[in-house]
Amino acid sequence: MDITTLTYLVPVSGVIALLYAFTRAQWVNKQDVGTELMAELAQAIAEGARAFLRQEYRVLFVFVLVVAVLLAFANAAQVGSSWMISISFVVGAFCSALAGFIGMTVATKANVRTTNAARTGLGEALNVAFSGGLVMGLAVVGLGVLGLGLLFIAYDSMTDWNVTKIIGVISGFSLGASSIALFARVGGGIYTKAADVGADLAGKVYEGIPEDDPRNPATIADNVGDNVGDVAGMGADLFESYVGSIIGTMVLGTAFLTSNAMMDSAFGELSAIILPLALAAVGIIVSIAGSFFVKVKEGGNPQHGLNIGEFGAAGLMAILSYFIITAMLPEAWSAVVMGNMMEFTSLGVYFAVLIGLAAGTLIGLVTEYYTATDKGPVTGIVNQSLTGSATNIIAGLGVGMFSTGIPAVILALAIIGAHEFAGLYGIAIAAVGMLSVTGIQLAVDAYGPISDNAGGIAEMAKLPKEVRERTDKLDAVGNTTAAIGKGFAIGSAALTALGLFAAFMQQANVPNIDVANPKILAGLLLGAMLPYVFSAMAMGAVGRAAADMIKEVGRQFAEIPGLREGTAKPDHERCVEISTKAAIREMVAPGLLAVIVPVAIGFIDKSMLGGLLAGVTVSGVLFAIFQSNAGGAWDNAKKMIESGYSIDGKELGKGSDAHKASVVGDTVGDPLKDTSGPSLNILIKLIAVVALVIAPLIA
Amino acid sequence: MDITTLTYLVPVSGVIALLYAFTRAQWVNKQDVGTELMAELAQAIAEGARAFLRQEYRVLFVFVLVVAVLLAFANAAQVGSSWMISISFVVGAFCSALAGFIGMTVATKANVRTTNAARTGLGEALNVAFSGGLVMGLAVVGLGVLGLGLLFIAYDSMTDWNVTKIIGVISGFSLGASSIALFARVGGGIYTKAADVGADLAGKVYEGIPEDDPRNPATIADNVGDNVGDVAGMGADLFESYVGSIIGTMVLGTAFLTSNAMMDSAFGELSAIILPLALAAVGIIVSIAGSFFVKVKEGGNPQHGLNIGEFGAAGLMAILSYFIITAMLPEAWSAVVMGNMMEFTSLGVYFAVLIGLAAGTLIGLVTEYYTATDKGPVTGIVNQSLTGSATNIIAGLGVGMFSTGIPAVILALAIIGAHEFAGLYGIAIAAVGMLSVTGIQLAVDAYGPISDNAGGIAEMAKLPKEVRERTDKLDAVGNTTAAIGKGFAIGSAALTALGLFAAFMQQANVPNIDVANPKILAGLLLGAMLPYVFSAMAMGAVGRAAADMIKEVGRQFAEIPGLREGTAKPDHERCVEISTKAAIREMVAPGLLAVIVPVAIGFIDKSMLGGLLAGVTVSGVLFAIFQSNAGGAWDNAKKMIESGYSIDGKELGKGSDAHKASVVGDTVGDPLKDTSGPSLNILIKLIAVVALVIAPLIA
Repeated sequence: MDITTLTYLVPVSGVIALLYAFTRAQWVNKQDVGTELMAELAQAIAEGARAFLRQEYRVLFVFVLVVAVLLAFANAAQVGSSWMISISFVVGAFCSALAGFIGMTVATKANVRTTNAARTGLGEALNVAFSGGLVMGLAVVGLGVLGLGLLFIAYDSMTDWNVTKIIGVISGFSLGASSIALFARVGGGIYTKAADVGADLAGKVYEGIPEDDPRNPATIADNVGDNVGDVAGMGADLFESYVGSIIGTMVLGTAFLTSNAMMDSAFGELSAIILPLALAAVGIIVSIAGSFFVKVKEGGNPQHGLNIGEFGAAGLMAILSYFIITAMLPEAWSAVVMGNMMEFTSLGVYFAVLIGLAAGTLIGLVTEYYTATDKGPVTGIVNQSLTGSATNIIAGLGVGMFSTGIPAVILALAIIGAHEFAGLYGIAIAAVGMLSVTGIQLAVDAYGPISDNAGGIAEMAKLPKEVRERTDKLDAVGNTTAAIGKGFAIGSAALTALGLFAAFMQQANVPNIDVANPKILAGLLLGAMLPYVFSAMAMGAVGRAAADMIKEVGRQFAEIPGLREGTAKPDHERCVEISTKAAIREMVAPGLLAVIVPVAIGFIDKSMLGGLLAGVTVSGVLFAIFQSNAGGAWDNAKKMIESGYSIDGKELGKGSDAHKASVVGDTVGDPLKDTSGPSLNILIKLIAVVALVIAPLIA
Repeated sequence: MDITTLTYLVPVSGVIALLYAFTRAQWVNKQDVGTELMAELAQAIAEGARAFLRQEYRVLFVFVLVVAVLLAFANAAQVGSSWMISISFVVGAFCSALAGFIGMTVATKANVRTTNAARTGLGEALNVAFSGGLVMGLAVVGLGVLGLGLLFIAYDSMTDWNVTKIIGVISGFSLGASSIALFARVGGGIYTKAADVGADLAGKVYEGIPEDDPRNPATIADNVGDNVGDVAGMGADLFESYVGSIIGTMVLGTAFLTSNAMMDSAFGELSAIILPLALAAVGIIVSIAGSFFVKVKEGGNPQHGLNIGEFGAAGLMAILSYFIITAMLPEAWSAVVMGNMMEFTSLGVYFAVLIGLAAGTLIGLVTEYYTATDKGPVTGIVNQSLTGSATNIIAGLGVGMFSTGIPAVILALAIIGAHEFAGLYGIAIAAVGMLSVTGIQLAVDAYGPISDNAGGIAEMAKLPKEVRERTDKLDAVGNTTAAIGKGFAIGSAALTALGLFAAFMQQANVPNIDVANPKILAGLLLGAMLPYVFSAMAMGAVGRAAADMIKEVGRQFAEIPGLREGTAKPDHERCVEISTKAAIREMVAPGLLAVIVPVAIGFIDKSMLGGLLAGVTVSGVLFAIFQSNAGGAWDNAKKMIESGYSIDGKELGKGSDAHKASVVGDTVGDPLKDTSGPSLNILIKLIAVVALVIAPLIA
C-alpha cells in the first residue's frame, strides 16, 4: 500500500462511521415512543431543540459568511496561504454544524424511546440511550475525518501547492469547527442554564411551582437545554479538539518533509503528516467495535458495560497504535525543528500517543473522584451543609480549587514526557492519541443527557415507579460519565491548544516565547486574565437570561387563566424562544473577545501573542477544572443528601436544612459547570486556532 | 555628599521613622480609655492578640532557627554566598516580627481610645485611630530601611566581599521577612476568619446568640482577629513587599557596577544599588509629612482627610523622586544585562518610578470601584439577592472574575512601560516607587481595623448612639480604604515578585524562560496551579477551625450555668486559644508547600523554576484579585441592604429575604477576602524569594 491509497482510506473510515451511525439512527427511530402524552412531550422538546438550532444556524450563517470573506481577503495575497482557506473554513463549520444537527436530532428521538424501553427493561433502555449517544459520537468523528481527508485530497490533486501550504490552508477547517463550537458550547451553555435556573427560580418566586411541574412553562425549555448544552455543545467541543489536534500534528509533521529517513521510509515523506489521520481512522473502527460491548442485564450496573466499551476501546487503540506507527514511520530519523537538529524514533512517537491516552483517562478518573458521591470531597461538602449554605459554598469552592492539583501534575508530566519522546510533534500527537477514541467517548457522554431527558419524560408522563427507577439508574451513571467526560474534554482541550500553540510557533516563525521579555510577560498576564473575564461574561449572561425567563413565567401565570389550576396549558414556546434569543444575543460579546484579542495582540507583536496563548491555556485549564469540579461536587452533594445520607444516625433527606443548603450550592454550581467552565475549553482552543490561522500574516 | 554618607543616611531615616512612631504611640497611650467596661473589653482583646503573637513567635523561633541553620550550611561553601546569609535572614525575621509586635500593641491600645475619643467628636476619634495606624506604618518602613541599611553597611565595612556578594547575602533579609509574613498573613488570616465565621455560625447553630452579643464566647476572638489579620497580617505583607522590592532592585543594580558612566557619576558605581534605599528613605519623610494632613471636622468626611494625606504623599514623592534620581544617576549609561548591551537614562528610571506610583494608585481605585457600595457591581449583587443566596453568590463570583480585567491591563502596561524606560531594573524600581509611600499607605490600612474594633467596643460597652454613629462613619471609610489597600497590596506583591523574578534570573544565570521548552511550560502550569491548592488549603483550614470554635461555644453554653441568661461570663480565653492553635497548626501544610515546591523544582531544573515563578505570579495575582474583590463586593452588598437600599420603592433592610441572601454571600466572601486571597500575596513573593535565595546553589 502506498501513501496515496492510505490517504484515500481516511475519508472511507469517515463514511463507515456515518453509515453505521445512520443504521443506529434508523434503529432508534423504529422504536416505539410510548403513550400519547409521552409523544407530545418529546415532540415539544424536539421542536424546542430544532428552534434553537434554526435560530443559531441563521446567525451562524451570517457570521461564517463574514469571516469567510475576511479570511479570503486577508489570505489571498499572502505567500504560503490562499483565499481558499475560506473554503476550508466553511467546510469545517458545515461539518461541525451537521454533526451537531444529526446528534441532536437523534438525541431528541432517543430520549422518549429510552423512557418507553425502560417500561420493558434496563438493558433495552440502555441500548436505546447509548445508541442515541453513539450516533452523535460517530457523526463527530466521521465528519471530522471525512472533511479533513477530502480537503487534503482535493487540495493535493487540484492545486500545485506544496504540502506545507496545503496544511496551512486546511487549518481554516479548524477555525470553522471552533466557530461552531463557540456558538454551540457558549450559546448552548447560556441556553441550558438560563432555562434551568429560570425554571428553578420561577418556582421560588411564584410559589408552588416546582421545577419539573408540567404547569411550569419553563420545563420544556429546561429539557431542551440538556440537549442543546450537553449533547450539541459537548459534541462541538470535542469536534473542535478532534480536528484541532489532528491539524496541529499535521503542521508539526511538515518539519520532517526534508528528512532523508522519512523520505526513504515505506510511505515516504508524508508519513508523519498522514499519521494523525490514520490514527483517527483506526480509532473510528475501534470505537465502533467497543460499542458492541456496551450491555447491561436487568438489575446490573450500566456503568460496567460502559466501562468495558470505553476502556476496551482505549486498550485496543493502545495496541493497534503500535502497529500503525511502526509501520508508517521509519525506526529513527532526524530533522531540523525550530532551528535545532533533533532525533526522532517511531517508538518515541508511540510512547507519546500512549501518554496522551493515559493522561486523558487519568484526568477523567481524578475528576470523577472529586465529584463522585460517597467519596471524601463530596462527603465533606455534605458535612459542611449542616451549618448552612455559606459553609456548603465555601467547601465546594475549596474542593474545586484543590481538584486542580493532580490534573495539573498529570498534564505537566504528559507535556514533559511526550516532548521527551518526540519533541513538539510528540505533544501534538499525544493529543491525537487522547482523542482517537472520541467516537465512543462522546457516545458515553451523550448517553447521559439522553437518560436525563428520559427520566424527565417519565416524571412528566407520570409513568409507574419501576420505569422511573430504571431511568434513574441510567441517569446516576450518566452523572459519573458526565464528570469523566468533562475532565476528558478539558484535558484534551489543553493538549490540543498546546499542539496548536506549537504549530503556531512554527508557522509564525516565533523562535522562542521568553517570559523574561516584558511584552511576552504582559501577554502571559493578559492571557491568564481572559478566562476570568470570559467566565464572568458567561455567568452574567445566564443571570440576565434567567431573569427574563422568570418574568415570562410570571406573565403567563398572570395572563393565562387556569394555568395555576392545571386546566390550561403553559406557552412552552415563548420560554424556548426567550432562552434561544438570550443565548444568541449574549454570546456575541464573549465571542468577539475571544477573536479580537488574539488578532489585536498578534498584530502588535507576534511573540506577545505567544505569551497570550501560554497564559490563556494554562490559566484556562485550571479555571475550567476549578469551575467544573466545584459544580459537579455541589450537584452530587445535593444528590447524596437527597438519597438519605445520614450523619450521627440522623438521616438528612429532602427538605432538611442541609438539603436546602445543598440546593443553593447546586444552583451556584450549575452555570459554573455547564456554562462558564466548559466555555473555557472553547476559549483556549479558539484563541490558539485564531493565532494559527493568522500566523502567515504576522510571521 | 558622597555615597558613603548617603548610605549612612538611610538607617537614619529609619531611626526618624521609629522615633516619630514612638512619640505617636506615647500620645495614643496617654489618651483616656473611657469606662471600666470599655477598659475591660479592650484588655481582653489586647491579651488575646498578645496570646496569639506569643504562640506564633514561639513556633516561629524554632522555624527561623531551623531555616537559619539550613541556610548557613547550604551557603557556607558556596561561591558568591556565605553562611552569613543566615544572619540576614534572622535580622529580617526579627525586624518584621518586631514591626508586627509594635503595630499590634499600639492598635490594641488605639481601638478603645478611639471609641472614647468618639464620645467627644469625630475629629478626635480619627486622630487616635489614624495615629494608631501610623505607628504600624512607620514601624514597618522604619525597621525595613534600618535593617537593610545597617546590614549593607556592616557587610561592606566588616568583610572583603564585593558588592554583588554583599547583596546576595542580604537577600536572606527578604526571606526572613517572607517567613514572618507567611505566619502573620496566612496564620493570621486563618485566625481571623475562624473566629469570625465561628462566632457567626455559633449564633446560627445555638439560636439566639448574635455575633456581637457579649454572651457569645467567640466575640473577643473575633475582635482579636481584626488585629491579628488586618493589622499584623497586612503589616507583614507590606513589609515583605517593601524589602523585597528594594532587594530585587539592588540585585539588578549590580549589572551597572562596571558601567563607565556610572563609575564616573557623582556618587560612583553604587548609585543604582543605593537608589532604592534612598527613595525609601525619602518616602519615609514624605509619609510623615503626609500624615499631618489627615484631619476631619465634626460632620465632615474622614475619607477626605485620608485622601489628602495619601495622594498628597504620592504626589510629593513623584516630584521628589525626580530630583533624587537625576542627582544620583548619570544622565545616560550603558551596561551588559543578561548578555545584551543596553542603554539606560536617569529620566527613564524616573519614569519607571512614576509608572509604579501610578499603577499602585490606579489598581487601588479600580478595586474600590468593584467593591464600593452604590456603584454598579455591588448594586448588581444587591439586585441578584432578591432571588436568593444562589443568585447572590453567582453575581458576586461574576464581579470578582470581571474585576481582574482592568488590573491585569494596568499591570501589563506597567511591566511593558517600566521595561521600555529602564529594562528589568525599571520593573523592580517601579515596585519600589509604588511602595515608597508604604508608611502612610499602611497607616491608612491599619486605621480601618482599629476603627472597626472601636465600633465593636462601642457596641459591646453599650455607649450612646452618637458615639456609635461616629465610629460607624470611621468604619465605613475603613471599608473603602481596606479595599484600596488590598488592591495596592496585590499590585505591589505582583511587581515585587516580578522584580525578585528578574533578580533570580540574573543570580541563577538563567538566560531565558522560553515556554516553548516543555519543562518550562510544565513549570508554568504547576506554578499556575499552586494558588488554587494553596487557597483551598487556607479555606479548608478556616472551615475546620471554625467548626472547632462552634463546638467550643456549644460546650460553654452547656457547661457554664447562667451564660445564656447573661448572668455568667463566657470563657473568652479558650476561644482565643482555639483560634490561635488552629491558625498555627493549619498554616504548616500550605507553608511547607510554598517552600518545598520551588526548592524541589529548582534542583530538578533551574529554568523550570523560572516557569514556575512566572506561573505562580501571574495566576496568583489574578486569583487573589478575584477572591479579594468578590469578598469585598459581597460584604458591601450586605451593608447596602442593611442601610435600607430600596428597589421599586420597597426598602430591603435587615431581616428581609434579600438581606438573608446577602449574609450568605458575605460569609462566603470572608475567607476569600481575608484568608485565601491575601495569602496569595505571600505565596507569590515567598516563592520568588526562595528562588532568589537558592539561586547561587542552582546557578
